[in-house]
Amino acid sequence: MAEYIAPIQRLVEEFRRLPGVGAKTAARYAFAALNFTDDEAVKFADAIISLKRDVHKCPICFGLSSSPEKCEICANESRDPSIICVVENAKDVMVMEKVRGYKGTYHVLGGALSPIDNITAQDLTFDALVERVKAGDVKEIIIATNPTPGGDTTAAYLARILEPYDVEVSRLAYGIPVGGDIEYADEVTLYRAMEGRRYF
Amino acid sequence: MAEYIAPIQRLVEEFRRLPGVGAKTAARYAFAALNFTDDEAVKFADAIISLKRDVHKCPICFGLSSSPEKCEICANESRDPSIICVVENAKDVMVMEKVRGYKGTYHVLGGALSPIDNITAQDLTFDALVERVKAGDVKEIIIATNPTPGGDTTAAYLARILEPYDVEVSRLAYGIPVGGDIEYADEVTLYRAMEGRRYF
Repeated sequence: MAEYIAPIQRLVEEFRRLPGVGAKTAARYAFAALNFTDDEAVKFADAIISLKRDVHKCPICFGLSSSPEKCEICANESRDPSIICVVENAKDVMVMEKVRGYKGTYHVLGGALSPIDNITAQDLTFDALVERVKAGDVKEIIIATNPTPGGDTTAAYLARILEPYDVEVSRLAYGIPVGGDIEYADEVTLYRAMEGRRYF
Repeated sequence: MAEYIAPIQRLVEEFRRLPGVGAKTAARYAFAALNFTDDEAVKFADAIISLKRDVHKCPICFGLSSSPEKCEICANESRDPSIICVVENAKDVMVMEKVRGYKGTYHVLGGALSPIDNITAQDLTFDALVERVKAGDVKEIIIATNPTPGGDTTAAYLARILEPYDVEVSRLAYGIPVGGDIEYADEVTLYRAMEGRRYF
């Protein structure tokens, strides 16, 4: 006998697919879902289905788009297409968007280079980025890959393949987080902060 | 502009209905759901809908049943209907079922008495329990309400309304959890453990 009656057990197993959700949390979610009204349950189920149906990849930047055409950012005429911020994942675009000041566009690589996971340059969207640069009008590339070994390798690779083109390439600064305390910064972050120090 | 594109934002809001899920966790779940295959998404959505369609209340014990008839436990002939364990919620039945040794049946009250939340005897299934007792053949009632003020009140009320009938009424023992350390037990638990001490 399973731990719960079949319809509940099924939903528990579905919830367990979500990151960081174990058996207890999944059961808690499933029992909460029992208290949904019919309408609420349909809305929830619909939202999951709609995700697969209504989320598209932007053909220009590979970010997420709610239409099969250009995404909202690429289509927005007030954004500057001559500045491209390169990120690993689509979610990173939304993180960067919280920095209200940025008015350029994006390019989503789809991950970071990682020989261990068998992710090579062919698996990421480097070629499409180079095409965007070749098409002209791109003045600046800001690399915003993660400060991880994979992100570092990817940034170095990007800098190399972009070298032949007349475009400025930079990478986000790493250092002590604003509001942080150097006492709690790890050595690598401190080393990066030293390296990136700015003179008055 | 919402934080995410519409279809993602919608799912984020649905996930936020779940207990203990805030904005960040909901976003993490929604982005994980983006990686579902079409089949997986349909299965997930289906499991939610099926919950509303396929989970019924057992007409005898008010526990959860996967059919509109008797639940699996009430229908199981190897279970002893003369012993009834009374719990607050349907989920508690599954918790009790982990105690492999119990071979009796259950009765789900649907909550605990709570004047503050306006939950009175009429809102719970006391009457149905009394009917089960009146119908005869019930020899023992084990009260397994929670060790909370509401659970205590409910247990006392149950003991009172069952008094006229020829049935043994007991309540789960409270004390130091097995594997626990008295150093870490709170005073109320220690007091209950003292009260319930057993002589050799």
